[in-house]
Amino acid sequence: MKILGIVGSLRRDSYNAMLMRAAAELLPPDAELVLFDALDEIPAFNEDLEDGPVPDAVTALKEAIAEADGVLFATPEYNGSIPGFLKNALDWVSRPFENNPLRNKPAAVMGASTGMFGAVWAQAELRKVLGLIGARALERDTPVGLATMRFDAAGELADPDGRELVGETLALLADTIREREAYLADAA
Amino acid sequence: MKILGIVGSLRRDSYNAMLMRAAAELLPPDAELVLFDALDEIPAFNEDLEDGPVPDAVTALKEAIAEADGVLFATPEYNGSIPGFLKNALDWVSRPFENNPLRNKPAAVMGASTGMFGAVWAQAELRKVLGLIGARALERDTPVGLATMRFDAAGELADPDGRELVGETLALLADTIREREAYLADAA
Repeated sequence: MKILGIVGSLRRDSYNAMLMRAAAELLPPDAELVLFDALDEIPAFNEDLEDGPVPDAVTALKEAIAEADGVLFATPEYNGSIPGFLKNALDWVSRPFENNPLRNKPAAVMGASTGMFGAVWAQAELRKVLGLIGARALERDTPVGLATMRFDAAGELADPDGRELVGETLALLADTIREREAYLADAA
Repeated sequence: MKILGIVGSLRRDSYNAMLMRAAAELLPPDAELVLFDALDEIPAFNEDLEDGPVPDAVTALKEAIAEADGVLFATPEYNGSIPGFLKNALDWVSRPFENNPLRNKPAAVMGASTGMFGAVWAQAELRKVLGLIGARALERDTPVGLATMRFDAAGELADPDGRELVGETLALLADTIREREAYLADAA
């Protein structure tokens, strides 16, 4: 199965990018992780722009989601909520609702932070937003707080508890994908 | 007093732009409304970009907020939350926290929607975010739902209840600004 990874931070040394790299190592053996890393190319959502050609980066993101069996987010928390540019990308992807590529797509959220809480507010709001877009978001956060202690100098998630938490989220996401594919195969 | 108006929708015929125009008519006599309308020029927030020159549109927004006595938002709700590009603008404005121009700045939120509820989830999340940035957001929503019925063909907020609601929010915002200025004058 193919899982699309989306990181909600653009900075080079982002702990959430490190968290996504850790997820790539902790995937179930039948899964592969593909990254979408052009969120910074997506312009501000404007309904009027939908009358013309959709921006290339939006089309690329929608296609990447459509081709994936599930989506995995690693998000920081900015001002108690979802980073604005990540939410902006989802605002584009969500339209039109009827055939947006996140509908019925299994999804999971993770979040790294240097503080104690591991971006739980951002993860909760992101799960709410994903649910409204029609995705099947796991009702589960993956909070990796105290990032400066949990990641080593090479950017590896060294902390065993953190690795276990991420591994559990990935196993649940993979189960959800398998269940959905089995259901669709039965229904066909 | 000068109030800065920020509209969280970029489309030309936005009901939230109409709502902001209604607010301009309903202001207390000692207040004027100035609009910031370049949110679409603000790039995706990236902490690494803070090492170089801050993008011009970010500087313009920070200065416009600094020069205003209060800030008034009119926001739609996208996927149950704040429009991403509006949140992205606030993510830029919020940094560095210590001297961000929203700190201690009185602020109020409004929201128009074609549905019944008037963007109350977006307004609630926006108030939370403003509070974390350090603004003094009124604990009050200004929900103008059923916009197709409340605005007339010329884009005027024709509905008396809607006008009363907006007028009350503006009066409370103006009171908060006056109280803050009186306090600062006393403290000086």
